[in-house]
Amino acid sequence: MREIYLDNAATSRPWPEVIEAVTEVMRDGFGNASSLHRRGLDAARRVDDARRAVLDLVGSGEWRVVFTSGASESDTAAVLGSVPRGKRDGVVTTTVAHAAVEESCVRAVELGARVVEVSAGESGVVEPEAIAAAADERTALVALNHVAGEMGTVQPVEESARQVKRVAPRSRVLVDAVQAAAQLPALDYPREVDMVALSGHKVHGPSGVGALLLRPDVRPRKLIRGGDQQDGLRSGSIDVPGVVGFGVAARLLAERRGAAAVGMRDAAERLIAGVVGTLDGARTLGDPARRAPGLVLLAIEGVRSEVLLHALEMRGVLAASSSACHSARVDPPRCLVEAGLRRDEGAVRLSLSLDTTPDEADEAARIIVEAVGGLRGGRAAGAR
Amino acid sequence: MREIYLDNAATSRPWPEVIEAVTEVMRDGFGNASSLHRRGLDAARRVDDARRAVLDLVGSGEWRVVFTSGASESDTAAVLGSVPRGKRDGVVTTTVAHAAVEESCVRAVELGARVVEVSAGESGVVEPEAIAAAADERTALVALNHVAGEMGTVQPVEESARQVKRVAPRSRVLVDAVQAAAQLPALDYPREVDMVALSGHKVHGPSGVGALLLRPDVRPRKLIRGGDQQDGLRSGSIDVPGVVGFGVAARLLAERRGAAAVGMRDAAERLIAGVVGTLDGARTLGDPARRAPGLVLLAIEGVRSEVLLHALEMRGVLAASSSACHSARVDPPRCLVEAGLRRDEGAVRLSLSLDTTPDEADEAARIIVEAVGGLRGGRAAGAR
Repeated sequence: MREIYLDNAATSRPWPEVIEAVTEVMRDGFGNASSLHRRGLDAARRVDDARRAVLDLVGSGEWRVVFTSGASESDTAAVLGSVPRGKRDGVVTTTVAHAAVEESCVRAVELGARVVEVSAGESGVVEPEAIAAAADERTALVALNHVAGEMGTVQPVEESARQVKRVAPRSRVLVDAVQAAAQLPALDYPREVDMVALSGHKVHGPSGVGALLLRPDVRPRKLIRGGDQQDGLRSGSIDVPGVVGFGVAARLLAERRGAAAVGMRDAAERLIAGVVGTLDGARTLGDPARRAPGLVLLAIEGVRSEVLLHALEMRGVLAASSSACHSARVDPPRCLVEAGLRRDEGAVRLSLSLDTTPDEADEAARIIVEAVGGLRGGRAAGAR
Repeated sequence: MREIYLDNAATSRPWPEVIEAVTEVMRDGFGNASSLHRRGLDAARRVDDARRAVLDLVGSGEWRVVFTSGASESDTAAVLGSVPRGKRDGVVTTTVAHAAVEESCVRAVELGARVVEVSAGESGVVEPEAIAAAADERTALVALNHVAGEMGTVQPVEESARQVKRVAPRSRVLVDAVQAAAQLPALDYPREVDMVALSGHKVHGPSGVGALLLRPDVRPRKLIRGGDQQDGLRSGSIDVPGVVGFGVAARLLAERRGAAAVGMRDAAERLIAGVVGTLDGARTLGDPARRAPGLVLLAIEGVRSEVLLHALEMRGVLAASSSACHSARVDPPRCLVEAGLRRDEGAVRLSLSLDTTPDEADEAARIIVEAVGGLRGGRAAGAR
């Protein structure tokens, strides 16, 4: 059976060039990037090259790239490394924040911070005015999510950052760009954005590697402590093969995403049309005009998420009901409830990649319609 | 020119089986271990298999394996996740602790902890009595280093843990086993040890992956926050290829190390004899009876470490003066000074692996003698 992988927001297939690079470094280029001999210097050169590639992802402006073990580490380090700071003890976050930001805020409160959470509401989008209204002079950190992984909506983070800095000029603005990097045709953050979190495995790179981009004057307190690696901002031997693979993925992504995102949007629209146009009681959640090109969040009446996902898997379509981080939970994430998900609806998140073809989208739509029909029919039959 | 790699304490060459496994998982087994579809379940199965392999490294007893991004994360999570705990605010550490423990203690002090550091002195070994004397009922954590990476000495951590628990039964004992796993013929921790830190890339596994082993009732506060992964003990998508590669390395290591450590000890002894027996003003530091099989710390009169290391590299021998974590620092680490390193001596750490051959050891000794001769001669000539 053919597999149609539509769970790219959980993890994406590593590109062949990435696998080749990781393998090559493990085989021929092993070395500790902090060692002073030739193997160390060679490793450090490869890391620098990857830094430049990752910078290409976020456009212009000056950044320092700190390699981390992934986006959860980047988010945690950004939040807990920025709060409290002097007299500033406030955090502004949103209901569409990644779990790493959400749970770091819980810890920040234990450490004495005041946390305000702004709701994304039915649109799935937090407006800049609402963010700015929650900030004040005591705000240490504002945490924004560029593309909300669960809702699939694009947040106006650039404008939010600008408005925040007017009321809280000394706060730090963090943008979680993990899904945005995979989804949007380009990223280009204004100077009001201080920190950006990225992940390797969401952009067809290796897992176990991510980055936290920092403006030159921004130094969050260190999360992982130890040696002097990475300019004293993150200890631990650098994962050289992982970082090199991330660099290769970033370079390919920067080349491809402009054109490919158009194809991804087209595929997603065919998928939506194929399901919503055919099936009664099926709709998308969140403001359709703010949908990320390849993220589709369906609410389907009369089916349970887990049951539908299982039926889809039996037909070769791999998808999710929500983020993998909370896959063990039974209740839908709060942002879906805020967006209007009803109790009689099942939620399915279909996350496409730049590699998803129109043909896969059509086939997935056909399979979803068929699976829902089967489940509804089966249930009706059972109830008779 | 033939390369003789004697910097295995910084990082070790990944074994071919490890590279193959990582490549295979990236190519065919990609998936988020938290996803509920078949790719997720397959990834989770591979992770479980790796957990069992890592457990084989530490012998008997019940452990929970938490995969991390490496030993610095494991150490930081163990220290900062255990202090303070209720009324217990004390930390006992040693002068041979890894940098991650050392720097986490600095942060612990900022958060209100009392830290006592016990010196390893000239022998390079911290005796159990000294550790136990530093602990009391308010001790939250005792951090031990099984094989001190900079000194190369084996610490009696099993006995230290037992003695600590007599005076501080509710403290947690952490053993950093990063170098020990690569060096010792076997590990087997008594129940008094609560946490064990391990690294992948020091045991011929992938970089960017490590583990923190926890007794079933030990739950340090989470360091990297976010999703519910790993039983709520460490958030972030698991690095499945890295973890699988670590498992392969662990399995091979458990099979090989008993016999191979004998060969490694023999090679190290040939190396020591070849240098110390030939060269005036050359000696080893630390108690020779407590030396780890493959770690050789030489103090050589009349040469500077950096200059000698460069001369060795020109002849194909890659080594270090100390740990890679602090390679940017000019002063020798404090534990070497405590062990009696004089200002007129250069320090060279030669760290062998299970793969180092007797022939490489003989050749390295010959090269060291030749290089030191050249430098001493050159300096004398220059001074004339």
